[in-house]
Amino acid sequence: MQVEKTHVATVDKIKLVDMLSECNLPVIEVTSFVSPKWVPQMADAELIAEGFKRKPGIEYQCVYLNSKGIERAQATGKFDLEGVISVIASETFSIKNTNRTIDETFAEMHNRIAVLQKYNIPIITAPVMAAFGCNYEGNIDPQHALSLIARTLEIAESYDINLERILLGDTMGWANPVTIEYLVGRVQDKWPDKDIILHLHDTRGMGLANAYAGLKMGVTHFDASVGGLGGCPFGGFKGAAGNIATEDLVHMCHELGIETGVDLKKLMDVTLEAERILGRTLPGKLAHGGSLDTYRKTPQV
Amino acid sequence: MQVEKTHVATVDKIKLVDMLSECNLPVIEVTSFVSPKWVPQMADAELIAEGFKRKPGIEYQCVYLNSKGIERAQATGKFDLEGVISVIASETFSIKNTNRTIDETFAEMHNRIAVLQKYNIPIITAPVMAAFGCNYEGNIDPQHALSLIARTLEIAESYDINLERILLGDTMGWANPVTIEYLVGRVQDKWPDKDIILHLHDTRGMGLANAYAGLKMGVTHFDASVGGLGGCPFGGFKGAAGNIATEDLVHMCHELGIETGVDLKKLMDVTLEAERILGRTLPGKLAHGGSLDTYRKTPQV
Repeated sequence: MQVEKTHVATVDKIKLVDMLSECNLPVIEVTSFVSPKWVPQMADAELIAEGFKRKPGIEYQCVYLNSKGIERAQATGKFDLEGVISVIASETFSIKNTNRTIDETFAEMHNRIAVLQKYNIPIITAPVMAAFGCNYEGNIDPQHALSLIARTLEIAESYDINLERILLGDTMGWANPVTIEYLVGRVQDKWPDKDIILHLHDTRGMGLANAYAGLKMGVTHFDASVGGLGGCPFGGFKGAAGNIATEDLVHMCHELGIETGVDLKKLMDVTLEAERILGRTLPGKLAHGGSLDTYRKTPQV
Repeated sequence: MQVEKTHVATVDKIKLVDMLSECNLPVIEVTSFVSPKWVPQMADAELIAEGFKRKPGIEYQCVYLNSKGIERAQATGKFDLEGVISVIASETFSIKNTNRTIDETFAEMHNRIAVLQKYNIPIITAPVMAAFGCNYEGNIDPQHALSLIARTLEIAESYDINLERILLGDTMGWANPVTIEYLVGRVQDKWPDKDIILHLHDTRGMGLANAYAGLKMGVTHFDASVGGLGGCPFGGFKGAAGNIATEDLVHMCHELGIETGVDLKKLMDVTLEAERILGRTLPGKLAHGGSLDTYRKTPQV
């Protein structure tokens, strides 16, 4: 929602979260506790938190950047807060997006860990954003991305934190199936006990091709957004560029014989509702193309 | 253009073809010589043919369904007519789209060959449309698709015609990377001397994932459309569903290190011009996301 230009009513945001809760997704990111000055679309985070209904078995997450955000999120009592200690692989984008160099990010990471521990938030994931390339710096050397992961894990270990997951973020849509295969493979080689999350954007149409490459490498965690909503307000894009569409990804999984447990029909309804609310067609294809199972006379084996 | 609801001026269609001619594409499909009663958007086929400038080295093709269409196309003297003898793998869709059963299509194929030979049109390609699945019949058994190819080749051979190419058409967006791999692999096993053309639609977001699967299998011929324009008026879709976008495919090839010779910048300009003409955003991503080469400080190796 953060990049939407039209005002979205709080009640509509709550409705979308509640509809998502019926889709049997494992994790839902509900809102962001960030400064309303920078991201006005998120000024109603508390109201959304108050309004949505938690459904057992689903992890409800939210975005926060600092102690203030954590306190606001925790005060609502509605979230399964998880700690991330992240770094952006591009120096220029790191400065533009977080006002910190990469070295400053690592220096700050100690404070970040202290804050998360103070609030008893389990630190689980090490994201490397812009891990494949950056609109400001071009290609990111995979060795550089790997060294950032190593530094992050080392800092975590110095606090006896054993991170469970490494998130590879293709924030600006630079990955292709071959670079996915390469970087995922190297991460698996170096840290075989860590789960990998792929955070993909469909900026140049390769989103599902990249997800497919990830699936073939055994990746089972993906970030995605309903209808392909979203994008980063600080990424320097010419056009909107959201995450891969959740329903398109789930549908591809089902077609490939990978069970997800997600109710695809309900998920497509969320996309259509989001389009009604936003007054525009979203980039996801499935809600308009139709799930193949609805056309089949006999179910897919 | 055939599915566009707004009238597109002849001069604009000519402009798009002339712009495409500057992109160094190997083949351009210019227009369709079909009945204006059924496809009103194509009523100006002769005027388009008269108006566009041929550029040496490019094959200019057009669609025609019968003798009348051939005569109209040949009268313009502007086309490199190629003969196709095609079959639709779904009985229901065959009847809906061509008013013939599959058996009737094969019976008619003898007349089709006679007509093409009468007009000295080289018969080069055997397309099987809806080869992966059909909105009316569900999944298409790959063995069925293979048997249709075998029947087509057999008929061609009975006239001493050695077809060069087999086209696998995913007319209604049923393929996924695994079914692409399987059917392409079986065709390669059975007819190793034939080139394969993949005709892909991006109905459910897997278009480029399917193209990637095809590329990995060694496929070098793809049908695609500028901006992802198009769709079949008789396919029973809920929403528009065009081919994969030419510029997204070319960009993926370049990113994978596959040279195409296509001028990507000019191709993206055609998409933006088509959007201006049609007054809507097309589904192709690249024209808005931007080609990665424009962001790189050093060229991709």
